[in-house]
Amino acid sequence: MTYGSTFAAWRADTPAWPAYTGHAFVRALGDGTLPPAAFLHYLKQDYVFLIHFSRAWALAITKAETVAEMRLAAGTVHGLINEEIALHIKTCAAAGIDEASLFATQERPENLAYTRYVLDAGHSGDLLDLLAALAPCVMGYGEIGRNLAAQKTSDNYDDWISTYASDAYQGLCRDVGALIDAAVARRLGDDPTASPRWPALQARFAMATQLEIGFWAMGLDP
Amino acid sequence: MTYGSTFAAWRADTPAWPAYTGHAFVRALGDGTLPPAAFLHYLKQDYVFLIHFSRAWALAITKAETVAEMRLAAGTVHGLINEEIALHIKTCAAAGIDEASLFATQERPENLAYTRYVLDAGHSGDLLDLLAALAPCVMGYGEIGRNLAAQKTSDNYDDWISTYASDAYQGLCRDVGALIDAAVARRLGDDPTASPRWPALQARFAMATQLEIGFWAMGLDP
Amino acid sequence: MTYGSTFAAWRADTPAWPAYTGHAFVRALGDGTLPPAAFLHYLKQDYVFLIHFSRAWALAITKAETVAEMRLAAGTVHGLINEEIALHIKTCAAAGIDEASLFATQERPENLAYTRYVLDAGHSGDLLDLLAALAPCVMGYGEIGRNLAAQKTSDNYDDWISTYASDAYQGLCRDVGALIDAAVARRLGDDPTASPRWPALQARFAMATQLEIGFWAMGLDP
Amino acid sequence: MTYGSTFAAWRADTPAWPAYTGHAFVRALGDGTLPPAAFLHYLKQDYVFLIHFSRAWALAITKAETVAEMRLAAGTVHGLINEEIALHIKTCAAAGIDEASLFATQERPENLAYTRYVLDAGHSGDLLDLLAALAPCVMGYGEIGRNLAAQKTSDNYDDWISTYASDAYQGLCRDVGALIDAAVARRLGDDPTASPRWPALQARFAMATQLEIGFWAMGLDP
Repeated sequence: MTYGSTFAAWRADTPAWPAYTGHAFVRALGDGTLPPAAFLHYLKQDYVFLIHFSRAWALAITKAETVAEMRLAAGTVHGLINEEIALHIKTCAAAGIDEASLFATQERPENLAYTRYVLDAGHSGDLLDLLAALAPCVMGYGEIGRNLAAQKTSDNYDDWISTYASDAYQGLCRDVGALIDAAVARRLGDDPTASPRWPALQARFAMATQLEIGFWAMGLDP
Repeated sequence: MTYGSTFAAWRADTPAWPAYTGHAFVRALGDGTLPPAAFLHYLKQDYVFLIHFSRAWALAITKAETVAEMRLAAGTVHGLINEEIALHIKTCAAAGIDEASLFATQERPENLAYTRYVLDAGHSGDLLDLLAALAPCVMGYGEIGRNLAAQKTSDNYDDWISTYASDAYQGLCRDVGALIDAAVARRLGDDPTASPRWPALQARFAMATQLEIGFWAMGLDP
Repeated sequence: MTYGSTFAAWRADTPAWPAYTGHAFVRALGDGTLPPAAFLHYLKQDYVFLIHFSRAWALAITKAETVAEMRLAAGTVHGLINEEIALHIKTCAAAGIDEASLFATQERPENLAYTRYVLDAGHSGDLLDLLAALAPCVMGYGEIGRNLAAQKTSDNYDDWISTYASDAYQGLCRDVGALIDAAVARRLGDDPTASPRWPALQARFAMATQLEIGFWAMGLDP
Repeated sequence: MTYGSTFAAWRADTPAWPAYTGHAFVRALGDGTLPPAAFLHYLKQDYVFLIHFSRAWALAITKAETVAEMRLAAGTVHGLINEEIALHIKTCAAAGIDEASLFATQERPENLAYTRYVLDAGHSGDLLDLLAALAPCVMGYGEIGRNLAAQKTSDNYDDWISTYASDAYQGLCRDVGALIDAAVARRLGDDPTASPRWPALQARFAMATQLEIGFWAMGLDP
């Protein structure tokens, strides 16, 4: 199972990809050894991340060229703001952290670097530049969720794992993959890897993957 | 009934407001004399308008400072793309125009001027600049819908009128009014008309009102 | 003499191009019959135009991918703000209009439509989308200046004509033409007209040309 | 000597300011103990920084509301691209690094975090949000240059120090300070610290100061 041919190509040419999807933080979610303090710290940073990541998907709406592109981006914004963020709020609430505290979380530089890079990819380029920077988070979490659901040896982080392994989230990944494939075909044609823009898009994807690795490392360092 | 105190203040200081909400096009919707060709021409242009107007509301998400601001802007984008636009598609389909033709409508300069002005208000300023340019369309249609529902002498354009007179649309206007009031209080304080920014915001609202008048005039000129 | 191969291709596929460069306003500059009130009205609107057109060139700096692209865009912004605008200020001052009045000119919808369209081309797309919308003004004025210098039958508007016929302005047109050719080659490769993006870029150029025609028409209608 | 009253207020309320202007990297420039490899590493990263910092100043042009704001921002872009960056190119060239290599420098996350934060401050807010994020770099370097010129105990980094201590750079700091004071007065009035926006602007300045500290730390870690 995969999430479209463009994602598959970007992923295959990103040597750091396994360091992201198989990071120590990820493994510790699967075997249940992640310290609760690290998980809570991660959730708080990820709440702030999702705020700015939603802004980046909203930027995608402003850069869409077709109604189909707009609809999918709008659906993703809606899903992020009203569903994915809601999980963070619920989990944090159970740990005694209300949403106002979440929103007031001091954003760490590793967090800030990532989302502002994605936003700038959108502002400086077109929809493809933005999608290449958005893809590693969306699809990487899909891949991590699917892997952990199959391989986990502990139920400690089951809520988190099943969110990203869920049919709903896997469907989102496939939809985003189809959006990217169509957006690429529309702008680069049938042989996109031959386009002079391909290396720059590949580099966007690789940089966002690198920033994901930095985010996990930050997660382990509350 | 009104849509918040900021809107009320902007509306009161915009001499052209009645020329917008009481335009000949509006009156012809109410008495049923609007030629069907003009209505269809208007709907096609308005479809293109809503595409770009949705982009402007998406821009608002990227410029929000609170989760409440983000949620309401995201809800509005969703409503525009999946509900208000849907009415246009349905009405045009009934007249034999499919969505691909709608999307391919040649955008008239009066249409283009309006939405690009709103988008630039957002890019050049902050959320308030954008909201001041968004307000005349949202609330003006609410007011027009309410007025026509009470005063109409024909049922020819009942679908259109009842869309904007509906509880759902009136509720949206009140929600947007509350969003604007809160966004203004957050940035300009308790006495916003005393802020040095007030005249510029008022001017944004007035310019968007003027562009609405141009849009109705274009509607009468298929 | 021309301004690069991309411009030549866009120009050749824009049927409305002669209606822009040979507009009645242009002919009246050349034979001296343009009423002074129309010229002054045009200059005031063009001052406001240049403010927003400079903003669009500044946006190009933020969307550049190479230092060469940045330098040329920055040089153009500098030239627009400190040279081309200066001519307007000087000419208007001679007619008793100071810069504060110029800046306070009520922007006409035909004017606003044009510059906000260009800015949105940049915000919604990449540097190529922006350059395609910027090109008709820059190069069209170069062509008009050159033509009028050769064909004029009156010296009434000599200052204006010689500004755009000057070596400095013609050099700017060639530099911008070279920038566009390089930016296109960098992003679309050696056969850009075969790119799926070509029709959209061509349409940007055609729309901006149309908006230029609207601007001249506005100029004749003080 | 200072650089305007707004800067003075922001600086006074930023506890981390001395950790930036008196960082170990800065002290090592003054006493000549900075390892040449660290300086060269810093210069390469700073070249990339200045590219994106110029983009942020260009964004300021697009968000200006007065011709005076536009002119000063345009002058700063010109100074950055054609003067400050030129020093880096010259110094690096002397060390055998050509501009193409400079431009190809792999941007470090600490570097990327800073400039993308500044750009996003501009995109998400208005000119004040952007200026508050731009100020720490511009004025901090002015302060550092002035201090080191007075206190240095070595001539090893004299070229660098005299660039920022120069009358030209100090004049730029005063001009930017005056621009900020005028932009604040125009938007927040005569008592800006009483504006509800003041804490958010102060926080922008503080975050950019923090990111400067991260940049120096990166400089010491080639």
